[in-house]
Amino acid sequence: MKHGVSVRRRRRLVGVDSCIQTINEMILRAKMEAGLDPNTPLRSLGMSLSGGDQKDAIDKLITCMKDHFPSLSQHYLIANDAIGAMATASDHGGLVLISGTGSNCKLINPDGSQVGCGGWGHMMGDEGSAFWISHLAVKTVFDAKDKLAAPPHDVTYVTKAMQEYFQVSNLLGMLPHLYRNFQKSHFAGFCKKLAEGAEADDALCRHVFTQAGRVLAKHVRAVLPAAQEPLLTGDLGLPILCVGSVWKSWELLKAGFIQVLDEVASSDEFKGRFLGYNLMTLQQSSALGGACLGAQSLGDVLKMDYAANAVIFYNHSFCSKE
Amino acid sequence: MKHGVSVRRRRRLVGVDSCIQTINEMILRAKMEAGLDPNTPLRSLGMSLSGGDQKDAIDKLITCMKDHFPSLSQHYLIANDAIGAMATASDHGGLVLISGTGSNCKLINPDGSQVGCGGWGHMMGDEGSAFWISHLAVKTVFDAKDKLAAPPHDVTYVTKAMQEYFQVSNLLGMLPHLYRNFQKSHFAGFCKKLAEGAEADDALCRHVFTQAGRVLAKHVRAVLPAAQEPLLTGDLGLPILCVGSVWKSWELLKAGFIQVLDEVASSDEFKGRFLGYNLMTLQQSSALGGACLGAQSLGDVLKMDYAANAVIFYNHSFCSKE
Repeated sequence: MKHGVSVRRRRRLVGVDSCIQTINEMILRAKMEAGLDPNTPLRSLGMSLSGGDQKDAIDKLITCMKDHFPSLSQHYLIANDAIGAMATASDHGGLVLISGTGSNCKLINPDGSQVGCGGWGHMMGDEGSAFWISHLAVKTVFDAKDKLAAPPHDVTYVTKAMQEYFQVSNLLGMLPHLYRNFQKSHFAGFCKKLAEGAEADDALCRHVFTQAGRVLAKHVRAVLPAAQEPLLTGDLGLPILCVGSVWKSWELLKAGFIQVLDEVASSDEFKGRFLGYNLMTLQQSSALGGACLGAQSLGDVLKMDYAANAVIFYNHSFCSKE
Repeated sequence: MKHGVSVRRRRRLVGVDSCIQTINEMILRAKMEAGLDPNTPLRSLGMSLSGGDQKDAIDKLITCMKDHFPSLSQHYLIANDAIGAMATASDHGGLVLISGTGSNCKLINPDGSQVGCGGWGHMMGDEGSAFWISHLAVKTVFDAKDKLAAPPHDVTYVTKAMQEYFQVSNLLGMLPHLYRNFQKSHFAGFCKKLAEGAEADDALCRHVFTQAGRVLAKHVRAVLPAAQEPLLTGDLGLPILCVGSVWKSWELLKAGFIQVLDEVASSDEFKGRFLGYNLMTLQQSSALGGACLGAQSLGDVLKMDYAANAVIFYNHSFCSKE
């Protein structure tokens, strides 16, 4: 038996017990689908997990799996979701920029070294994520109603969309959604309504996505000084792997995103050194990269078709190279 | 038996059952201390409660109390904590600006009409509160470490204070404090360490308090257009009743607070109309105001010594009145 499969889990939402149970069930199913003996351990199980850079939690998870399911796998490797995603798209490194319910950014250099920005969750960041976009829109409505801050654009559409989505008639009605019954994923789901509003040209909806584009690009700016030269000067420029559903609204993020990176490229620090970037999206699960890293951790190679695993959807060049 | 006593409860932290139990026990104790028959209902129980403007929750609370403890009181009045505080300080109205763990602002006009700003809790505001100040400082450390945003001042002191207060050695260690074991009051308690830092002249600590002063003044600005003329032009200017422990650090808030209100006073809307303001602090529990309102709700009067209940700690005049 070769190297295994990978799973993802949702951070902080399930306990360790239910998490390893699910992993075990998935592996059993995968072994059976592959016509293998479910009692023969995999050589290595590579997993790409959100939160997979918290060493203590990961060590605990692996110990639990070895204890409870000794015939599951001989070895384990758990990488965080950004690393797994990048390993799916390339073995030369690049930048992973996640914007789903939450957000995160990791630069992976060609030599494997990493630098991160964000990934701290909604209480301390998640800038540019669906949660953050939803929160920014709702906060703009609250502040306008309170007269605490003038809204940058008319709040009529967003107010109505908020009342419909959350099924409330006033601001007080929002409190259960923020506290007693708070569900981050449900709150973040409001972002889809804002995307619809932006596509129908509502100025405030467009504004929150432009702001998201700006702050996502600021994550790139944050890790760029740590990027090794080949990443900045390659033929297509810096590879940025975009993961998460907010990237479906790239056209709405674009203006803000491009503007910030234009400023970076023309700054003293990067002038002539940061030649361009390309945005890619995965065509395969980032679990594939997790499995690949699991194999590598034992010195083996899992052959990957990178060109098929990721496609470029936007390319930006700062200058001609003649 | 006259009108009763008042209690405060902490919003969202205890359920209705345990809340009414506590109220009942307090009233029984108060009746006994006053040498009264515990089985004879009060005529009216006036209470000043944080969250006491959420009509549905209040109605539910009162119904539960009447059901469970029929000999507790004949009538009930529940006002929110801002209203109770103002009723303790004055019967002419004014502005209540709360900055404790959370923050809130209410303008109470001489005719009893009210306008509010804030009070939405840490997920949608609490600007200028101890929680907000603590969060701003911690977020500045995170953003500086991540290089997501340059800090306005050196983060060395705040980083060290954060590691000591939360007993962590790095940013990852903060996550349990933000999620699994989040306790708003404990997080807000970090504000005290920041006040100590500010008093020892750390620039970042001073900065977060100045920002808090600014945003607290913006709450005043938000409700000011709704203020009736006598509040703005009285001898001592607008009475602002300051409630909550953050006001102990008035000297740290002062620069930001004054600056914003100076701008308001010289704006086209308020030039020559907003002549000054005074900041007051309570010398008695705001429960006293709750009891007073409880009496009023039955057409009775509870005699109050307003001059003894609140004292002015700062007075600001925008122009001489000669």
